[in-house]
Amino acid sequence: MHVQVVVFGGGSFGTAMACALASQKSQLNVTLLLRDPYVCKGINEQHVNTRYLKEYVLPSNVVATTSATEAIQGAQYAIHAVPVQHSRAFLKSIADILPPDVPIISVSKGLEMGTGKMMSEVIPDALGRRQPAAFLSGPSFAKEMMDLRPTGVVAASKDKKLAREMQCLFASPYLRVNITTDVTGVEICGALKNVLALAAGIVEGLDLGNNAMAALVAQGCAEIRWLAEKMGAKSATVSGLSGLGDIMLTCYGSLSRNRSVGVRLGRGDALADILASSSQVAEGVATAGVVVSLARTYRVSLPVLTAVAQVLDGALSPKEAVFEIMNLPQIEES
Amino acid sequence: MHVQVVVFGGGSFGTAMACALASQKSQLNVTLLLRDPYVCKGINEQHVNTRYLKEYVLPSNVVATTSATEAIQGAQYAIHAVPVQHSRAFLKSIADILPPDVPIISVSKGLEMGTGKMMSEVIPDALGRRQPAAFLSGPSFAKEMMDLRPTGVVAASKDKKLAREMQCLFASPYLRVNITTDVTGVEICGALKNVLALAAGIVEGLDLGNNAMAALVAQGCAEIRWLAEKMGAKSATVSGLSGLGDIMLTCYGSLSRNRSVGVRLGRGDALADILASSSQVAEGVATAGVVVSLARTYRVSLPVLTAVAQVLDGALSPKEAVFEIMNLPQIEES
Repeated sequence: MHVQVVVFGGGSFGTAMACALASQKSQLNVTLLLRDPYVCKGINEQHVNTRYLKEYVLPSNVVATTSATEAIQGAQYAIHAVPVQHSRAFLKSIADILPPDVPIISVSKGLEMGTGKMMSEVIPDALGRRQPAAFLSGPSFAKEMMDLRPTGVVAASKDKKLAREMQCLFASPYLRVNITTDVTGVEICGALKNVLALAAGIVEGLDLGNNAMAALVAQGCAEIRWLAEKMGAKSATVSGLSGLGDIMLTCYGSLSRNRSVGVRLGRGDALADILASSSQVAEGVATAGVVVSLARTYRVSLPVLTAVAQVLDGALSPKEAVFEIMNLPQIEES
Repeated sequence: MHVQVVVFGGGSFGTAMACALASQKSQLNVTLLLRDPYVCKGINEQHVNTRYLKEYVLPSNVVATTSATEAIQGAQYAIHAVPVQHSRAFLKSIADILPPDVPIISVSKGLEMGTGKMMSEVIPDALGRRQPAAFLSGPSFAKEMMDLRPTGVVAASKDKKLAREMQCLFASPYLRVNITTDVTGVEICGALKNVLALAAGIVEGLDLGNNAMAALVAQGCAEIRWLAEKMGAKSATVSGLSGLGDIMLTCYGSLSRNRSVGVRLGRGDALADILASSSQVAEGVATAGVVVSLARTYRVSLPVLTAVAQVLDGALSPKEAVFEIMNLPQIEES
C-alpha cells in the first residue's frame, strides 16, 4: 500500500523528516510544500535542496511543489515544519484544502508571540476546528539524521492511537520513537530549551568555563521543570528525551542555532546584527519574551530564562545578567 | 581569629579546595597532608604542587606535611580528598589522631568496592565512631576553580548547622554554595555520574554524534534518578547542581577523566592499557561494578549504567553495548 505524506516547509528539519521517512520506505511518497520555486526545481530535478542541507542527495520519492492543493491531495499525514511565528497564517491559508481527518504532525518548536500559545493551540485556532494532531520532539539535529546517526525522539498526542501510529511511521534502525500523551510537556520543553540555549551561548561567549555552564544549564532545567509542571507537564517528560535530552543537545551541541546567537551576544555583538546575518530562524529569540509573561501568569520565578529576555531587550548586558545570576541568594535545595 | 584547616590528600581537587579557602581568607591556614615528601617540599619551598595543577602558584598560607599528627594538630576542619578506594585504610590510620569533634568535609566521590558503601558510611565505619561530617559536590573542575571561574556546589549534611557552616567557610565571589540535608542524594549522584561519564565517553569514542549523546545522557540521568530515589534521595537533589549539574559537566566537559577513559574504550583501546597510562584515578571504573549490585538490591533496571560495567568486564564490546541500548523496546514515557 502506498502512503502519501506532505511536509509543510522545506527548512532543514522539514527536509530531514522527509528523508527519514522516504529513505526507509520506498513505497512512501513525500511531497514538500515550499514557497520558493527555485528550491522546488532543485529538489525535483537534481534531488537536492539548494538552500538547506545542500550537501545531501534526497531520495527520489521526495518531491516538491509550491501548490498547496497539489501537495495535500491524497496525503494521509501532514508534517508541519513551518516556523512557529508563521504557522498561524500558513495554516489559515490551507484550512479549506486540508481534509479534517488528516493528522498534523508538528515538529515546530516555540511559543507564538503575542498570544503565547503552543502549536497544539495554534493549530485548531488557525484551522477553526479540532484536527487530529501529534507533536514530535527530541534531541535531533537535522544534519545528523541525514547522516543516519542514531537518534531518539518522542511522539506526543492526546490520542494514544495516533501516537502509536507515529511510532510505526517514523521508527527505523536509526530512529527510536518513544510515545507519550503529555503534549504540554513535550511542547513547553521544546519551546523553552531554545531560550536556555541562548543563555548557554552567552556563558560560552563570555568564556566563563565548564563549571559555570553546567551550573547555569542545571538551574535553567530546574526553571523549565517548575514552569512546565505548573502548566500541567509530567515530571517524566521533563526528564526524558524531549525534555532534558533536547535541552542538553541544544545547550551543548555546536550545531544549535539558538546557542550560536547566544555566543555572539556574549561576545558583545548586537542582536540586530546577529539576526540580520543569519538565514535561519532562532526561535528562542521570539520565545524569550513570551516566557516572561508565562512566569507572571503561573507565578513562578525563572531568573535565568527571564534574564535572557532582558538581555535580548537590551535592559541588561550579558555580563550584568550573569553577575545578577551569580549573586542570587544561595539556597537550600530541599 | 585564625582558622586552621587540614586537607587529606594532595590530588588536584584537594589542592584546588585548599587554594579556594586559603586565597580568599588570609587569616586561614591550610595544611595538605600528603604521602610524597618531594611534593611536600615543592609546596613548602616553591609554593607549587609539582604533580597536580603544577602551573599554579599556591597561596603562601597553604603548606604541606607528610605527618598526620602535625597536619591535624589544631585543625578545626578536615577536608577529605583521598580517593574513595583508599579512604577506609587512610581513615583507620588517623582515627586516633583526629579529635572526634572535628568535622570531616568529604569531597571524594564514588562507592567503595566490595562493600558498595558511600563515604558517609565509610567514614564512621573506618573511624569506629560518629564523626561530624559534610559532603561537598557539584560541577567543579579543579582547574577552573584555580582560575577563579564562577563555580557552584552543594554542601550536604544531616546536621543543617554544619551545612550552613560549610557555606560560610567556602562561599566566595567565585564559589556559590547551596546547602541540603540530602546526603544520600548528593553522594549517590556524585558516584554514579562517573559511570555515566564512561558511557558518554564511549559514545564519543564511537563517533555516534550529538543526537545519540544527548539521548544516552538523558537515559542515564533517568537511571540515576530511579536508583537514587529508591535509595532515599530527594528529587530536587537529582535535578540540582550536585545531580544534573555535575552529570552534565562530567559527560560533556573535556576535562573529565572518566569521560576520557570512555573515549579510549570507544576507540577500541583495552582497559588495562588505558589505566596503565594514566596517573589519575578514574573513580567510575570502580563504581561501575558496584552499580550492578545496587540495581539488583533495589530491583531497578539500569540498562545504560549496567552496560558500562559489562564493557569494563569485557562481556560486551562498546559497539555491542550501544547496539543493545538502541534496540531496547521503545517506551511510553508516562
